[in-house]
Amino acid sequence: MADIKEECGVFGLFAENTTDVSSIVYRGLYALQHRGQESCGITVNDDGVFSTYKDLGLVCDVFSADNLRALGKGNMAIGHVRYATTGTNDRNNAQPIVVNHSKGRMALAHNGNLTNSYELRCEFEENGSIFHTTSDTEVISYTITQERIKSKSIEEAVCKTMYRLKGAYSLLVMSPAKMIAVRDKHGFHPLCYGEMPDGTYIVASESCALDSVGAKFIRDIKPGEIVIFSKDGIKSIEEHCNTVPKSTCVFEYIYFARPDSVIDGVSVHNARVKAGEYLYEEQPTDADVVIGVPDSGLDAAVGYSKRSGIPYEIGLIKNKYIGRTFISPGQDNRLNQVRIKLNPLKSVVDGKRIVLIDDSIVRGTTCAQIVKLLREAGAAEIHMRISAPPFLHPCYYGTDIDSEENLISSHHSVEEVAKIVGADSLVFLSIENTKKLALTQTNDGFCTACFDGKYPTEIPKFTQKSRFENKISEG
Amino acid sequence: MADIKEECGVFGLFAENTTDVSSIVYRGLYALQHRGQESCGITVNDDGVFSTYKDLGLVCDVFSADNLRALGKGNMAIGHVRYATTGTNDRNNAQPIVVNHSKGRMALAHNGNLTNSYELRCEFEENGSIFHTTSDTEVISYTITQERIKSKSIEEAVCKTMYRLKGAYSLLVMSPAKMIAVRDKHGFHPLCYGEMPDGTYIVASESCALDSVGAKFIRDIKPGEIVIFSKDGIKSIEEHCNTVPKSTCVFEYIYFARPDSVIDGVSVHNARVKAGEYLYEEQPTDADVVIGVPDSGLDAAVGYSKRSGIPYEIGLIKNKYIGRTFISPGQDNRLNQVRIKLNPLKSVVDGKRIVLIDDSIVRGTTCAQIVKLLREAGAAEIHMRISAPPFLHPCYYGTDIDSEENLISSHHSVEEVAKIVGADSLVFLSIENTKKLALTQTNDGFCTACFDGKYPTEIPKFTQKSRFENKISEG
Amino acid sequence: MADIKEECGVFGLFAENTTDVSSIVYRGLYALQHRGQESCGITVNDDGVFSTYKDLGLVCDVFSADNLRALGKGNMAIGHVRYATTGTNDRNNAQPIVVNHSKGRMALAHNGNLTNSYELRCEFEENGSIFHTTSDTEVISYTITQERIKSKSIEEAVCKTMYRLKGAYSLLVMSPAKMIAVRDKHGFHPLCYGEMPDGTYIVASESCALDSVGAKFIRDIKPGEIVIFSKDGIKSIEEHCNTVPKSTCVFEYIYFARPDSVIDGVSVHNARVKAGEYLYEEQPTDADVVIGVPDSGLDAAVGYSKRSGIPYEIGLIKNKYIGRTFISPGQDNRLNQVRIKLNPLKSVVDGKRIVLIDDSIVRGTTCAQIVKLLREAGAAEIHMRISAPPFLHPCYYGTDIDSEENLISSHHSVEEVAKIVGADSLVFLSIENTKKLALTQTNDGFCTACFDGKYPTEIPKFTQKSRFENKISEG
Amino acid sequence: MADIKEECGVFGLFAENTTDVSSIVYRGLYALQHRGQESCGITVNDDGVFSTYKDLGLVCDVFSADNLRALGKGNMAIGHVRYATTGTNDRNNAQPIVVNHSKGRMALAHNGNLTNSYELRCEFEENGSIFHTTSDTEVISYTITQERIKSKSIEEAVCKTMYRLKGAYSLLVMSPAKMIAVRDKHGFHPLCYGEMPDGTYIVASESCALDSVGAKFIRDIKPGEIVIFSKDGIKSIEEHCNTVPKSTCVFEYIYFARPDSVIDGVSVHNARVKAGEYLYEEQPTDADVVIGVPDSGLDAAVGYSKRSGIPYEIGLIKNKYIGRTFISPGQDNRLNQVRIKLNPLKSVVDGKRIVLIDDSIVRGTTCAQIVKLLREAGAAEIHMRISAPPFLHPCYYGTDIDSEENLISSHHSVEEVAKIVGADSLVFLSIENTKKLALTQTNDGFCTACFDGKYPTEIPKFTQKSRFENKISEG
Repeated sequence: MADIKEECGVFGLFAENTTDVSSIVYRGLYALQHRGQESCGITVNDDGVFSTYKDLGLVCDVFSADNLRALGKGNMAIGHVRYATTGTNDRNNAQPIVVNHSKGRMALAHNGNLTNSYELRCEFEENGSIFHTTSDTEVISYTITQERIKSKSIEEAVCKTMYRLKGAYSLLVMSPAKMIAVRDKHGFHPLCYGEMPDGTYIVASESCALDSVGAKFIRDIKPGEIVIFSKDGIKSIEEHCNTVPKSTCVFEYIYFARPDSVIDGVSVHNARVKAGEYLYEEQPTDADVVIGVPDSGLDAAVGYSKRSGIPYEIGLIKNKYIGRTFISPGQDNRLNQVRIKLNPLKSVVDGKRIVLIDDSIVRGTTCAQIVKLLREAGAAEIHMRISAPPFLHPCYYGTDIDSEENLISSHHSVEEVAKIVGADSLVFLSIENTKKLALTQTNDGFCTACFDGKYPTEIPKFTQKSRFENKISEG
Repeated sequence: MADIKEECGVFGLFAENTTDVSSIVYRGLYALQHRGQESCGITVNDDGVFSTYKDLGLVCDVFSADNLRALGKGNMAIGHVRYATTGTNDRNNAQPIVVNHSKGRMALAHNGNLTNSYELRCEFEENGSIFHTTSDTEVISYTITQERIKSKSIEEAVCKTMYRLKGAYSLLVMSPAKMIAVRDKHGFHPLCYGEMPDGTYIVASESCALDSVGAKFIRDIKPGEIVIFSKDGIKSIEEHCNTVPKSTCVFEYIYFARPDSVIDGVSVHNARVKAGEYLYEEQPTDADVVIGVPDSGLDAAVGYSKRSGIPYEIGLIKNKYIGRTFISPGQDNRLNQVRIKLNPLKSVVDGKRIVLIDDSIVRGTTCAQIVKLLREAGAAEIHMRISAPPFLHPCYYGTDIDSEENLISSHHSVEEVAKIVGADSLVFLSIENTKKLALTQTNDGFCTACFDGKYPTEIPKFTQKSRFENKISEG
Repeated sequence: MADIKEECGVFGLFAENTTDVSSIVYRGLYALQHRGQESCGITVNDDGVFSTYKDLGLVCDVFSADNLRALGKGNMAIGHVRYATTGTNDRNNAQPIVVNHSKGRMALAHNGNLTNSYELRCEFEENGSIFHTTSDTEVISYTITQERIKSKSIEEAVCKTMYRLKGAYSLLVMSPAKMIAVRDKHGFHPLCYGEMPDGTYIVASESCALDSVGAKFIRDIKPGEIVIFSKDGIKSIEEHCNTVPKSTCVFEYIYFARPDSVIDGVSVHNARVKAGEYLYEEQPTDADVVIGVPDSGLDAAVGYSKRSGIPYEIGLIKNKYIGRTFISPGQDNRLNQVRIKLNPLKSVVDGKRIVLIDDSIVRGTTCAQIVKLLREAGAAEIHMRISAPPFLHPCYYGTDIDSEENLISSHHSVEEVAKIVGADSLVFLSIENTKKLALTQTNDGFCTACFDGKYPTEIPKFTQKSRFENKISEG
Repeated sequence: MADIKEECGVFGLFAENTTDVSSIVYRGLYALQHRGQESCGITVNDDGVFSTYKDLGLVCDVFSADNLRALGKGNMAIGHVRYATTGTNDRNNAQPIVVNHSKGRMALAHNGNLTNSYELRCEFEENGSIFHTTSDTEVISYTITQERIKSKSIEEAVCKTMYRLKGAYSLLVMSPAKMIAVRDKHGFHPLCYGEMPDGTYIVASESCALDSVGAKFIRDIKPGEIVIFSKDGIKSIEEHCNTVPKSTCVFEYIYFARPDSVIDGVSVHNARVKAGEYLYEEQPTDADVVIGVPDSGLDAAVGYSKRSGIPYEIGLIKNKYIGRTFISPGQDNRLNQVRIKLNPLKSVVDGKRIVLIDDSIVRGTTCAQIVKLLREAGAAEIHMRISAPPFLHPCYYGTDIDSEENLISSHHSVEEVAKIVGADSLVFLSIENTKKLALTQTNDGFCTACFDGKYPTEIPKFTQKSRFENKISEG
């Protein structure tokens, strides 16, 4: 039940013929909703005419049958769901962004976070460029545009652009005639593509979105790869591939991605089950039941149960209407907030020694409240097991683990945290095992910087989220 | 994953002092949302001045911080969530309904379905009464009003009214000074009450709603009981108790209620776990994994796994943003609709012999699609186990099992149904075991009429849902 | 620029064949919007099936192409615009109201105010009736329903009902097969009918609504008349006609009605022009320009100019986007509110002696502000002329002149009022001339009770607007 | 009743201290609503932090108390109302636009139309610039930004920018510390400033907006002038003044501006009254009444009446709730549309010889329908008088007189037009008199290009409204 947020998800399609593409993107974004709940948008490309609709809100609130219809038909479209990492949460920062430049028009949708966007932005501004938004995506669009002028094709411009962008980006670029999928050379965030039965190509942040539109998974985009979808078929540029070690965000497996997604050949669910198994192996614990905190602790709980032989149980019921605004007028404290989301099953936990599995502890407050609810329901012992190591360092690659201040483990030992949250014992997964969760022969490098501080890139010089909001210097 | 709908949920509170009652009812209705998703409403009673807000939509969509605030403070309030069983789904039929009569004012919120509302309505209309809605609740309010004129108190009127109402009703009546909770003598639907730490009394359809507002469960309202909450404390009238055998809807345990509720002393989760155990006992099956269809098949899957020793697995991932409108412009077929809600975990099901647990089969279409998805994901065998008997008869007590036409088991043998849905084998829970799911010494009578046709009351003469819409006779 | 509000307007149609009736009613209500801006509604009758949509707000805000379409086709429909005289302004009190009774179904739309609704309501409540709204219309529907049981036809029931209703009512009753228009025997408020080129009959509060749908005016409904529109043509019942003297609200001519309406044979515009002429005749004044306060003072200004020879000028410009909510966050005082609605033409008023014509002075505050604006723009002298006598008495027939407290002329002489509003002189039209404004041989009786206290009916015993809200007596 | 649309209105304020500026801008935009009804927006500057809210719709629909409050306090703000001349009507093109550049941040609001925006845009795009919108305003912001880099101050950059911009622009530029008002050297569109009692400076497109916020008019911004409002007071740069002859749009006086505005020292109302006088002088006509088409024909009708001695009358009543969407589902033809807006006063026009005054004839259809309505109401003769010459040429300076095709006078003689619209006679105001409408010693040059084709600037090479939408060239 991490309070940590992934910033974005992208979805794109390229069809042979003009068709009702917006409804397919709508489905795809629906499946990627967990990657960003603040704003969403779709840009449809009808033979070079771009139509965009985007707004603050969930996919199901922003899009109505009316405005999907108004987007019209087309043979290409890209979509985006967003949680604001860089830039404030205003309507202006919603994506896709559409820009006009000397060679035409371009739409972009981006998942990730650049580590040199400040420097790039300053460089552009010094040459007279203006910025409408505070997001990295506009910086990327400027870079591509600049390169485009000197290039023969949009894909050449994208390839040149990659020499200038640092950090994490899984990117969709749509020109009048092409859809281009780009994954940064480190492969921080996932990106894959597949094909619908009618030959329409789909690119998505996660494979679960391919499933949701009935597309067959073809393969992951490789770290550093550029894949171009056009009337001429699929083309790949691998100039940036294998130039640096792979370092995919391991927290995609632990928490961000949906369990039914497969990233770089590894099932997210399986990685989580394995985390549960390792947790038992690292410190075998005697208990009556294993309970996962819904939803993201459930898979690891199955693994813990399997490995330990302790029965798996459903011990916490989650209100399935949550996922929307729950307004709390008046006097509600934080415990009340948890109470409306989760309710313990007294008949299951009463008098029991419980192994409680969750994916992370950030500030510790939610965790403490869950422990309190279980105690009230009669739990005899609560052994907290976390399917990840403690957070100790900020992330610069597109999540909101932004400052060490709010990370309880930065200031407290594991024993202290156990005490604070009220658990009888507390175990975090070791970094060694964390690195093994999704390890295969081909999937062999992970970013674990938030746990061990080993950043695969230079750290950005300017890091506060609203750095562009406050940079004002003149009269 | 039943397509069957419970009609309603009710929630009420009685506080010592005037306070921000609407936000508490809001929380309570949020917890009862699964009992009715078409409309909802709250009536606040501030020393006899009633304020109501109700509309079509989910609790989180209908109520905003603004309109909750506008409802004002009070010392009593009742709320309602509704799925339309009788009466069309228009705004006018939303509850609570507030009526003015010669002795003052009254608000009502009702869960259930009368079997003699047509007769009562005709009787009133013949005496010059007019009806604004097509719901049973207006009929009840007329009956109470008529009795009120001849009675010394509102509770006496309610008690007399119970001699005239037939069928299922869990009812909240709010007068300027009292809140009255009523459960029909058969005890068809649940109703219980509890107390918040500050002494505020809470009445709710299910105990999970007490938990959600931090109230301590006190007890269930008995079948036939009237409980009056007023400045004078709690009073109970048991004149109608024990006049007929208890016949609580067994499908409340199997599907309608939330697993974290306890009804008449029995945990819903435990009843479902027991269903899973019985299912294995009735026909032991060899398989590799047990998978529950989320959400309502999960508890029984745990029971099946426990009893059989076959590992419990998470095999279907449910999109957690569903529960809202999913618009489907264009060409979407039914399979697409299921695909957006559920996605199989290929890594779990591929090559496996699966026991798949669900709570019911109504028309069979959804079930067939789930089987198809699992086959596509590589399932070797699919053994469908349903934690209830086949539906064969309509329900007249407040669910929408309305006509035999749509019930697949009315027309097909179990073997045929297995074939239609594409399962390798299919087993329904026996009626005998169904009756034992929630059986205790004090909880000893259940309505299983939809399975065996044994109705605990007379069947209504007029049953079509929109019976009041079409009764027009004049010029 | 009276702050006085008419309560309602009604519009109905009866077509030969089923057609798109809702869009015609929409147009008609649009033309009657000035008669009620708080809520509006339409009920369509499709061969006995009634569909209603109503809500708080202006016609153009409440109705969209979508919900007009959803109302469907039919061969009859009635509509209503409302300002709340009796009953609070909640959605529940919006009209038409639709009720079901033993002989079928009935929709009502009502303009006016009963003087015995409290007594009728008590009588019904004592017999066990319940009330959902606090409006007179529900009382009327009960009375009709009661009579209906004892009558052979709906029109007979309406005719009997008229013996029981006291006060003002211009009423539309729609049964499954008939539309019935009723005007109280005093003829307090207007009601007329006409015919569209295709033979569709239209009934409306004012003739301007007939014009707006291209219908030809046929005639006014007579005071006391019942006109029945059905497949058998038009039938009239005159049993209540000529039983009391006519007493049509003279303020309909002065302010409420649109100038392009013709009521009981007299053009509203002409009546206002005549008021301007009388104002000059009563006290000839020397001045440079005659200016009307938009919009309702303009016609009388033309009359004053014509009779006096003083040039008519446009001296105040009204913001044409007003008529909607103008929110005023922050520190706005009342002057600011007038400033946004009206702006003086400095070039016209600077240095001029002005005759300023308005229709009424209620509290005097708006008037004082207009005078202040004109002084700021340089007016040398301001001679205020009011095209009606001073308000001295409350109205019980459907306007909100409710209490003497707020009527400035109840507490102050004309000279004092002139001083308070800052005018150099002030003249109100005399009661004698007021009675002559719309006088013809056939239009010969007017209610001037708000000016002279001569009420044509008994005064109601209970008069406060929210009398039903506060009647609470029990526990 | 011209169907011609002005493109925009601007409003800005500079206060000494931080205060509730958004509500003042809201009032100002309300008063300028007639200058643009498609979208509107406000940007508040709180010590360099800019907050913007803008959307499609009228001021009263777009802004709620909530979102005005959310804009927060500040000491500067600018606002905009827009009708789309260049660029499609999408949310993205709404103003103010806010851009970030190397020296900080800048908000712009613009009224007018550049004649060289295509050339400027191409120039920027060739240097790698990207465009988010299709409006001129973004082009202006780029130009200022480019100059800003080479300048010591924002005002110096604005001054240099004016050498590059061609065409019409009344512009507000807001930097973190300054508000700058700019009027193009031709003075095509109005722009003036004033002061509120507390010393707050207001800039507005028209003086009526100063009145609406209680500000005292100080003076018009001169053609070519730059006025800078800052903590250091007011500063003026006149480098561009008097470099070309003044050529203010004469149609501002005839139609666009509100009659209560004073532009460059001349009252709009007075100019229109003079038009009415000239119309009589050019061709004296005998008639019974003079009637103006509301609202913009009323002032000229007063002038015609005054000069001719023919009585002024109110002959057409306008529905005062129009100004909003009037949906017309179903079969409505154009006549029906006019019928809902205007209704003739039969008692005034029946049997009369009418002089009917309007401000323009564009396609002739609306005019023909008004004539038809008056004939139906019994008019004996209709002498149409137009307070402007016939439209013969497109406008390139910010109105939507875009193509000659739709201008009836391009294809027909005056006699033919009279016949087409059904008038007994038709007279347009002569160009000579048109030029004299607002002529004074200081207000001595007008653009009459739409009437005589004499354009005060070069004509743009690319003129179609959506020129930027269609420029797509790549793959």
